[in-house]
Amino acid sequence: MRFPIPSWAFDSVIYQIFPDRFFIGNGSNVELKRNLYEKRGGRIENWDVPPKKKERSEHVKVFYGGDLWGVADKISYLKELGVNVIYLTPIFLSNSNHKYDAIDYFKVDPQFGGIKALKKLLKKLHKGNMKLILDGVFNHVGKENVYFKKALKGNKSFKNMFVFYEKHYRGWWGTKSLPELVLEEISVKEYITNVLIKYLELGIDGWRLDCGQDLGPEFSRYITSKVKGFSSEKYVVSELWTYPAGWDMVDGVMNYHFRENIISYVKGTNKNFGLYLERMYKETSNILTCWNMLDSHDTERLATIIEDKFLRMFAIFLQFTYPGVPVIYYGTEIGMDGGPDPECRKTMDWNENNWDIELRDFYKKIIKLRRKEPALRYGGFELLNNDPIVFMRKTPMVLDNLIVYGNIYDKPYELIVNLPDNRILSGTEYVDLFNDEKYYVKGGTLQIRMSPRSFGILKLKNTIVNNYDQYKRIS
Amino acid sequence: MRFPIPSWAFDSVIYQIFPDRFFIGNGSNVELKRNLYEKRGGRIENWDVPPKKKERSEHVKVFYGGDLWGVADKISYLKELGVNVIYLTPIFLSNSNHKYDAIDYFKVDPQFGGIKALKKLLKKLHKGNMKLILDGVFNHVGKENVYFKKALKGNKSFKNMFVFYEKHYRGWWGTKSLPELVLEEISVKEYITNVLIKYLELGIDGWRLDCGQDLGPEFSRYITSKVKGFSSEKYVVSELWTYPAGWDMVDGVMNYHFRENIISYVKGTNKNFGLYLERMYKETSNILTCWNMLDSHDTERLATIIEDKFLRMFAIFLQFTYPGVPVIYYGTEIGMDGGPDPECRKTMDWNENNWDIELRDFYKKIIKLRRKEPALRYGGFELLNNDPIVFMRKTPMVLDNLIVYGNIYDKPYELIVNLPDNRILSGTEYVDLFNDEKYYVKGGTLQIRMSPRSFGILKLKNTIVNNYDQYKRIS
Repeated sequence: MRFPIPSWAFDSVIYQIFPDRFFIGNGSNVELKRNLYEKRGGRIENWDVPPKKKERSEHVKVFYGGDLWGVADKISYLKELGVNVIYLTPIFLSNSNHKYDAIDYFKVDPQFGGIKALKKLLKKLHKGNMKLILDGVFNHVGKENVYFKKALKGNKSFKNMFVFYEKHYRGWWGTKSLPELVLEEISVKEYITNVLIKYLELGIDGWRLDCGQDLGPEFSRYITSKVKGFSSEKYVVSELWTYPAGWDMVDGVMNYHFRENIISYVKGTNKNFGLYLERMYKETSNILTCWNMLDSHDTERLATIIEDKFLRMFAIFLQFTYPGVPVIYYGTEIGMDGGPDPECRKTMDWNENNWDIELRDFYKKIIKLRRKEPALRYGGFELLNNDPIVFMRKTPMVLDNLIVYGNIYDKPYELIVNLPDNRILSGTEYVDLFNDEKYYVKGGTLQIRMSPRSFGILKLKNTIVNNYDQYKRIS
Repeated sequence: MRFPIPSWAFDSVIYQIFPDRFFIGNGSNVELKRNLYEKRGGRIENWDVPPKKKERSEHVKVFYGGDLWGVADKISYLKELGVNVIYLTPIFLSNSNHKYDAIDYFKVDPQFGGIKALKKLLKKLHKGNMKLILDGVFNHVGKENVYFKKALKGNKSFKNMFVFYEKHYRGWWGTKSLPELVLEEISVKEYITNVLIKYLELGIDGWRLDCGQDLGPEFSRYITSKVKGFSSEKYVVSELWTYPAGWDMVDGVMNYHFRENIISYVKGTNKNFGLYLERMYKETSNILTCWNMLDSHDTERLATIIEDKFLRMFAIFLQFTYPGVPVIYYGTEIGMDGGPDPECRKTMDWNENNWDIELRDFYKKIIKLRRKEPALRYGGFELLNNDPIVFMRKTPMVLDNLIVYGNIYDKPYELIVNLPDNRILSGTEYVDLFNDEKYYVKGGTLQIRMSPRSFGILKLKNTIVNNYDQYKRIS
């Protein structure tokens, strides 16, 4: 008994966009859009000036002019990269640039092009067989929220949607700017349900739920039931900064736990990495549709946290080969760096001279592999060695099986692993997709050679000699 | 470790069409198409003349002129009925009307409008958010098959695709007209893979595999791997005349076993019906996307096998409420009857005066319910009483739960059932969607009243009084 998981999620590679910082569309520029920001207390900044932290969080009022028209304009860039799903951080009316403090969920912010731009984006995406996921922030609203303002004035129909104490009200983590909703209240449930359905009817393909643990399991399940009630093909993912197992009332989690593990491993301080990955796989029923992410608008960028380029590519390699859906935070594919918020939210650099082309090409290669190989899309996980890490992605069809290995150390390794699959016949050849080396199975074991600082994927090759197929009766 | 199941399958109601007998499209008629049949040894028949069994199976050469243009012309009829997936029996080049004896899988038979008609049908279906499943007959070909003819002539490249003995060759069940393919041979695997991919690339949404047990589990898995390798959103279903549990290398089976159980129960000779349904549910991992069918081109029609109309509606009621995807064999929805092949393959009756409108409206109602209620689409199954049958469709969200009951007997029943779900609170109201009767839960039990010969669906109703919601923290 569980909600159906959208099958398209298995074939996905996701690209996360922070709309104000991606691209200004329709040939516009931020100067031409000045009025959209200043009349609402914002100020504009030039695309090339990096964002800086300011006192009293004033940096959230600095705008660069990116919008949904801009995302639509850049679909060909995304298609060439190979991604097929876009996740947008919030787009609903709000006076901040991040819009995690909604004034009105029923309005797409005019700063981002309004509902017209969203419709255009959806149409263009679906035409190109791509999908769109929106960010739903339902634990709290902004203090300018239309319902909260009515509640503040004492309007009885809205007062119960929030918690008022004698001298203050309940805000997220005590923050006055983010009044929390009372999720148990009927009126709040209806409010949020109407928002969910409005954008599903418009054609979006799923919802990302901000701060999953704050919503709690019961309300997360409530939301999923409304989304699946609409259609089993719509996707729900929770932001989750905890161990993901058991969070299966949604289709997957934005897996910050996975990120922590990867980083600690490549930094050399995680001695149980493989065992942890195995445990997480076994205990997390929706792991294949969880999000494997390495950075986001809420973390330092990958290039900043892992400066060593081999180790960074190693992390990306595991992001694409461990069970789950890889998510690329805009700009990370060209090597953009950035410290904690707001530095990780700088504008996308469209000057190709500044791009790390080797890195971008590596992304293209591994995205292609992930979209092509069934084992990477829906294969199971069998740990073959903890450290250096070796694992099998086991598929219902044995010929689709892959073996993944990685060595972060400065010395070579040569080790024999057991292949826990009675269908893999003795003598079978494996070929390394990264360096073309060949390996041969011996009684269900394989001797793998790893150069210092290397990784690879071994693919089973069914060698046919004189038309003889040893796998003829095995699948 | 399993293949992903297409999520759209959970929301489906399927309509099976035998193309020669459904509708002649483009305003044509069989006289105008005479040449298409006679030059290939067929003969035409008038739409109103019922098919009759003939010696040496000569009835398979009688054509009524239905084609894929005709199916496209009738999409509005199907949309009004409420179905959203069409399954077509074979459409590839063959001299018979059923086309289970292919000459060439790479050609859509011109008698059915050829590739042009298929493309048109696909376009129109997808525009209306409907799907198409084709019938793949891969255990055997027809004796006119292009490859078999080359093999017969001794062509070495094709000889090994079949089995030749001294004086005969291996045909399905020994039938000379249906040479069996050697599924272990590389050339055969390639042949079939190319067929699968050709039509997936054209845009079809899935394959139904003829005679699943003859293909065997290994080859069925091979086929599924090719289909899922193409896209996780494509569906594979096996024809299966056995107990379905364990047949999970495909997304579901065309469940003839379910049909046998239903028929024996309404005929009063199956005393373990509820227990059997429970066991099948528990043991069959893909039961939610198996096909619940009551008749087909290979069985007597429902109206012939179950004459009593209440019992027939009872069978249909269970087809739509037991876990699985309901399949309607064309014409059964308007009450068409027919004995074994070829009588069950008579032409669709488009004269509304002959329709059983009450039955058709019942279909419309229950199709709508099935497409609306999450519990019927993806809920689990909990048996509450064996006979008369009562069961719960249990959902991840308790408010979506349904209780289904049915009484085939001439006397009323009043019985108390346990509700195995700690989330169903005492005092909760249930309403019968068929007769509006109300019921109230008492400590996790419910007293159900059943009139003689009746069935119904009880839906949980969360009664809100003075804005108080007892389910506020339960989902």
